[in-house]
Amino acid sequence: MFELDPRIARDSVLITELSLCQVRLQNDARYPWFVLVPKVAEQTEVHELTQEQQTQLMKESSLVASALKKLTQCDKVNIANLGNVVSQLHWHVVARFKQDETWPGPIWGVGQAVPYTDEQIDQWREKLLAEL
Amino acid sequence: MFELDPRIARDSVLITELSLCQVRLQNDARYPWFVLVPKVAEQTEVHELTQEQQTQLMKESSLVASALKKLTQCDKVNIANLGNVVSQLHWHVVARFKQDETWPGPIWGVGQAVPYTDEQIDQWREKLLAEL
Repeated sequence: MFELDPRIARDSVLITELSLCQVRLQNDARYPWFVLVPKVAEQTEVHELTQEQQTQLMKESSLVASALKKLTQCDKVNIANLGNVVSQLHWHVVARFKQDETWPGPIWGVGQAVPYTDEQIDQWREKLLAEL
Repeated sequence: MFELDPRIARDSVLITELSLCQVRLQNDARYPWFVLVPKVAEQTEVHELTQEQQTQLMKESSLVASALKKLTQCDKVNIANLGNVVSQLHWHVVARFKQDETWPGPIWGVGQAVPYTDEQIDQWREKLLAEL
């Protein structure tokens, strides 16, 4: 049975559920950053998903990436499955800007998250849902 | 027309061509690390590929990831499309170990690459091709 990892629950906010994944806003105002969590129980690697689930993950990833690009006009979308710290399978979709604090390096594990206000989270929810 | 970015050409070695991607061994003996380069001309974001190409990219990524896991018995496969430095669309598939030098952080932009010997490259080619 799918059960969300408590660290993912703590660090992100549920925005919506797609057919395979929870779409969650990472609570870090430094980067427009969504985390897709496939609602599967055991798998920790993308290649362990079924072929259909892999295709669906790619679809949902691109849906979010495309919305993010449109909403932010970012310079590049970064996509990743790392999972070295939290083993539950999760997929990052992050808007990157030449002016952001770690460009062009990767964002993970660098500096401290800056939490959003509740109002900012509501704004992100509204903007993303309008694009999905 | 597809033309390989000179920095990707310099930093990696062609192992084989799949239907969408070149599969290249990153010339860095610190991590078993492959780079998939879709043979497309213009796109720099995964979501700009056609639906079919996206599905194919996922298939080829999982084929390489699954082979890498089997060959290395790594603790986690890291998958990413960053492209903040080299804009040509490319997809990293990296075997990570709890003992590697940057675990659990991401590998990109940290430390210096350690080139393989020609013999080691030949061994990787042989091992990967046997699994694909």
